[in-house]
Amino acid sequence: MFDFTLDATSGPARAGTLTLPHGTVETPVFMPVGTQGTVRALSPADLRAAGATLVLANTYHLHVRPGEQVVEKLGALHRFMSWDRPLLTDSGGFQVFSLEGFRRVDDDGVEFQSHVDGGRRTLTPERATEIQWILGADIAMAFDHVVPGGADAANAREAMERTLRWLERCAKRHAELKASYDATTLRHTSAPDDHVQRSVEASCRQTLWPILQGGTHLELRTEGLRFPEDLVAAVERGVDLFDCVAPTRNGRNGSAFTPDGPVNIRNAEHREDPQPLDATCDCETCTTFSRGYLRHLFMAGELLGLKLLSLHNVRYLIRLAGEMRAAIRRSAFGPWAAEWRRRYLHSGSA
Amino acid sequence: MFDFTLDATSGPARAGTLTLPHGTVETPVFMPVGTQGTVRALSPADLRAAGATLVLANTYHLHVRPGEQVVEKLGALHRFMSWDRPLLTDSGGFQVFSLEGFRRVDDDGVEFQSHVDGGRRTLTPERATEIQWILGADIAMAFDHVVPGGADAANAREAMERTLRWLERCAKRHAELKASYDATTLRHTSAPDDHVQRSVEASCRQTLWPILQGGTHLELRTEGLRFPEDLVAAVERGVDLFDCVAPTRNGRNGSAFTPDGPVNIRNAEHREDPQPLDATCDCETCTTFSRGYLRHLFMAGELLGLKLLSLHNVRYLIRLAGEMRAAIRRSAFGPWAAEWRRRYLHSGSA
Repeated sequence: MFDFTLDATSGPARAGTLTLPHGTVETPVFMPVGTQGTVRALSPADLRAAGATLVLANTYHLHVRPGEQVVEKLGALHRFMSWDRPLLTDSGGFQVFSLEGFRRVDDDGVEFQSHVDGGRRTLTPERATEIQWILGADIAMAFDHVVPGGADAANAREAMERTLRWLERCAKRHAELKASYDATTLRHTSAPDDHVQRSVEASCRQTLWPILQGGTHLELRTEGLRFPEDLVAAVERGVDLFDCVAPTRNGRNGSAFTPDGPVNIRNAEHREDPQPLDATCDCETCTTFSRGYLRHLFMAGELLGLKLLSLHNVRYLIRLAGEMRAAIRRSAFGPWAAEWRRRYLHSGSA
Repeated sequence: MFDFTLDATSGPARAGTLTLPHGTVETPVFMPVGTQGTVRALSPADLRAAGATLVLANTYHLHVRPGEQVVEKLGALHRFMSWDRPLLTDSGGFQVFSLEGFRRVDDDGVEFQSHVDGGRRTLTPERATEIQWILGADIAMAFDHVVPGGADAANAREAMERTLRWLERCAKRHAELKASYDATTLRHTSAPDDHVQRSVEASCRQTLWPILQGGTHLELRTEGLRFPEDLVAAVERGVDLFDCVAPTRNGRNGSAFTPDGPVNIRNAEHREDPQPLDATCDCETCTTFSRGYLRHLFMAGELLGLKLLSLHNVRYLIRLAGEMRAAIRRSAFGPWAAEWRRRYLHSGSA
């Protein structure tokens, strides 16, 4: 499963630059997912080496564990996870609406059951905004009502209209927080702790983004997504940001992206293969280790294998996004995509 | 459980330098254990950053999986695991003698059952030497007959005498291999693959070390070893090299070494603690992350936590060995050890 962020109208492939408190981000961009404030198996140093410019963290997960108050006491999300480049937090809406177990939705918000301790909790547009403000990511997302891809037109319309009403409440609360923190910042200009000061300043420069469920987004969600093929298709339709747990999840399962299609490193054919996973890749995994060694790590159940394939897959998607940006800028996205598909889809061992 | 290598007579604490094909090693030294050709959860770059100068790999494990022929085809052990500093392989004796299941010992060698595929295999002094020659570590260990710590005097004596007979056979086979490879090397001086060439050269410079079971070694094995207290005690008795899986195993369990004793990072007291694990430590974990974040990683079951605590614990022991070398060199090991024990044993939260 992977997610897109795009504006309400789909359009041609396009490239651009986002200027954010913790740096600039060239789009289209792939965001690694740091669900619990860490991209699974990778350190911030690994992510920097892989060229990640923007990381996504999940508001719902951080809210239920360790709780946004703990993250705040430890210097807000950037300092907590020691990531000094831009961060985006989702709204929590997607997780709340896709959780198993109790859930009650009305116009005020959503009551649900925590997957960690089973306790009842409530998220409203205001609470989702406050939690994200405390976390202090560069980009906060408005709280949305997510309906299943198969929802009928009436339910989809109801959710979209509710999401628009909730967007107004998110924007109002965000503006209030900003006004109150602007005052707080003035009082804290001589704060001894630079990190806390920077964290408050970052929140004050936080951007709130709307999210619209429906249309292109819904259609894509309902398809069985084949990754990274759909990523190229998404950029073709004007997508700016995309995130996905596939690179790390697939990596932990021994599946690696390569220009010639996915490779399952557990296959016996790699047993004595001295070649790198992807000869075109510049990541630590590909410049350091043979396929034979990587296969050994997986067959022997060694943790290092999980990291090395995760790292390569993240780097692969970041490089893929970079190639797409370059193709867009030279007005050659169509031919680039055709050639990419020809190579990716017509070969590969897994 | 941890192991020592020391000469047959115990003596006062001492420091020295080993000159090996892949570099020099200052002793006393802590060797991280790369059982299956990888130190669990750590990459070679992590190990270099932690200051590791010598890594131990297990002959038995690499023999049963992936097999020394695979390691050879992938350029021998250094290239296989991408570690360019000195390596030591144990003889396989310890594992063979401590395996559950079938085992038959006579003067020729040991027949045993592989823990991976259940197949019957035989290790003799000659085979253990050949396997280690193929692996190509800087230091190979002679094949030894290991008896349980509780063995009676007659059995211990029999094993020691057998080990001495086996040592002669190991040394003979090692000399034969060296002579035949010296000739091979002459034929390969124009080999196109530098790595293979270097690997053959490394084997030709491989040192075979004897190992004696009994005496101090046995006494230590029979005690319930408390780590790293026993490490200081071992150096006090003249130990040069020590290896242990405790730093990575304990690390994966959330237990970290600090100068004030072990810390269990899962304890609730660390929930909002902005301090590093060990304020005196220069590792990536301690210079980058708070105890609160590390606790979160463990509570959330995140892989990064396993790596970060393993990395710190390895760095802790490498620094501890460095402190011991410095104390020995200024002829102050006794007072240093007293002060170290006072601090380590009289406080700590786990």
